[in-house]
Amino acid sequence: MERACVNVDNIPVTIELIRREGAQALRYIDQRLLPAELRIVETGDWRQVVCAIEELAVRGAPAIGLAGASALALWVSGAQELGGIEEAADRIASARPTAVNLKWAVERALKVAVQHAGEGQAAVADALYKLVKEMEADDERTNRAIGSYGSALIPAGSRILTHCNAGSLATRHYGTALGVVYAAAQQGKVTRVYADETRPVGQGSRLTVWELSRAGVPVTLICDNMAATLMAQGLVDAVVVGADRIARNGDTANKIGTYGVAVLAREHGVPFYVAAPMSSVDPLIGDGSAIVIEQRGACEVLPVPLEGVDVYNPAFDVTPARYITKIVTELGSFSPEELASRL
Amino acid sequence: MERACVNVDNIPVTIELIRREGAQALRYIDQRLLPAELRIVETGDWRQVVCAIEELAVRGAPAIGLAGASALALWVSGAQELGGIEEAADRIASARPTAVNLKWAVERALKVAVQHAGEGQAAVADALYKLVKEMEADDERTNRAIGSYGSALIPAGSRILTHCNAGSLATRHYGTALGVVYAAAQQGKVTRVYADETRPVGQGSRLTVWELSRAGVPVTLICDNMAATLMAQGLVDAVVVGADRIARNGDTANKIGTYGVAVLAREHGVPFYVAAPMSSVDPLIGDGSAIVIEQRGACEVLPVPLEGVDVYNPAFDVTPARYITKIVTELGSFSPEELASRL
Repeated sequence: MERACVNVDNIPVTIELIRREGAQALRYIDQRLLPAELRIVETGDWRQVVCAIEELAVRGAPAIGLAGASALALWVSGAQELGGIEEAADRIASARPTAVNLKWAVERALKVAVQHAGEGQAAVADALYKLVKEMEADDERTNRAIGSYGSALIPAGSRILTHCNAGSLATRHYGTALGVVYAAAQQGKVTRVYADETRPVGQGSRLTVWELSRAGVPVTLICDNMAATLMAQGLVDAVVVGADRIARNGDTANKIGTYGVAVLAREHGVPFYVAAPMSSVDPLIGDGSAIVIEQRGACEVLPVPLEGVDVYNPAFDVTPARYITKIVTELGSFSPEELASRL
Repeated sequence: MERACVNVDNIPVTIELIRREGAQALRYIDQRLLPAELRIVETGDWRQVVCAIEELAVRGAPAIGLAGASALALWVSGAQELGGIEEAADRIASARPTAVNLKWAVERALKVAVQHAGEGQAAVADALYKLVKEMEADDERTNRAIGSYGSALIPAGSRILTHCNAGSLATRHYGTALGVVYAAAQQGKVTRVYADETRPVGQGSRLTVWELSRAGVPVTLICDNMAATLMAQGLVDAVVVGADRIARNGDTANKIGTYGVAVLAREHGVPFYVAAPMSSVDPLIGDGSAIVIEQRGACEVLPVPLEGVDVYNPAFDVTPARYITKIVTELGSFSPEELASRL
């Protein structure tokens, strides 16, 4: 049975807060080096974690949420007192603007810190360590639930297109969009995954193909501009992507290029699924127009500048809810209109 | 006046057959080295021209047509007799399968050679040299006419999106899709060109931005997956692309990714123009399903192979006629349905 070859345990854990001899440290895969090198970095310095988020060493909405809460835990762990924790939390939460999970996780950690503030620095450090470990466990439990609900939407023999990496590497482990793929593949329902390379950072060509092949899922890499012809040839049965922030109405910010794939999917009658934890839903915004889109540097697109040539490099785009077939969360699969009732 | 800064003469001639001390040679820009280096190669060896076509040193449907006819001229110029000319013509014409201009130009050259065959090798060489020089002059005349008809479709203040390079570098000089841009820019009507980088070969990021900036046209480079969000923001007023082969019904093969852009353009109400010489129309095929799509190697997409990872790399896709607003040729601008009546 082909499904027996699919093993998600072959993919290492992306991010993990550890405690050793009383001190805390964060272990994470430096994703900038993949697929050439699998390097696990260990640091007790919260500022290094902020840099890792800014420079995409750790990326993916759920993973940077964990990284953000962990960074605050490291800050407390290394602090003599708690004065300045709000400034630290602000600094961490603003490392990247679009994924709401970062803000959500840091705020949650800050709230726990404030609750325990009267018990002294060591007690707060303990409480934050415990919180992060709970969030880590929640992450995988959430991803498995998303996988389970999502795989119910995937018919046998499916060829699935994905964009960017909403895989194990975007979470602590297992993934959201790729969590759906792994769950469906373990049931023998996935014939092939097509991975968009996802310019300019290459989350598809460097990360998604790496983890899918490691897990034993058949994968074909394509350039972003090839999805249309694949669909025209009837080679895509479903699109599954992740999310960085979902508005109350279901409008979804995700990696640049997602919106174009959604338009193509609808044009070709291919279902388009967004798989994300409820923590990616931002209850404070009504629709996608309020989502801040991170603009990144020109050198990601054009490493050697050319005189007279400008570069436009938004890291995300917004897919209007009307293009989304279902949003798959740990609470179940919803149409975008149903989402608000689950908040 | 901003338009005074637009000067297409700043772009060097792409390809040119020359005669020196009785021997013929082809001079061409090795486009693989752009934008880092502008290298002009000169060769009298027809086989080197075939390699240049296969390896994309010379690319673009009109330019490889000229290269193909020139290669046959070089073959005759270097031959003692004409036995084997048909095999040489076959070899040249099959260097790349999709652009019909190559086949068209080589067949035209072969026909002239056969007409003059009774007059001896030197007379045939003379006749082919003359033919190629006529084709070169035709190329620029055709491009200027396409530019003129196309610019009439471009309103003042337009922001134009293009995919791949159908510019001066895809022709002897001036270009087809970019011919439209240059003509409109010279009339002061182009605010900005957005150039898709055009993975995996980077004709946009290496060639289109180079020649547009050299000509003084404001240009912004984007990744292929960013066109959708540009359109959603209302930043694109028209799409202009070239063609490698147009079927009688107007279905158009062009660089991979063109079809996706066409779907997005229609979704956003943006006109989608194909600019190409009539020699890109293949009167022998009724629709796009008969167009052979060149498949290229995995290493263009994934330079370092990854175990368990396949690559799909079609060099072209087919845009159905229903997505095309107008086809702009040297005979005028036509709806796809009108095209057949002009053959």
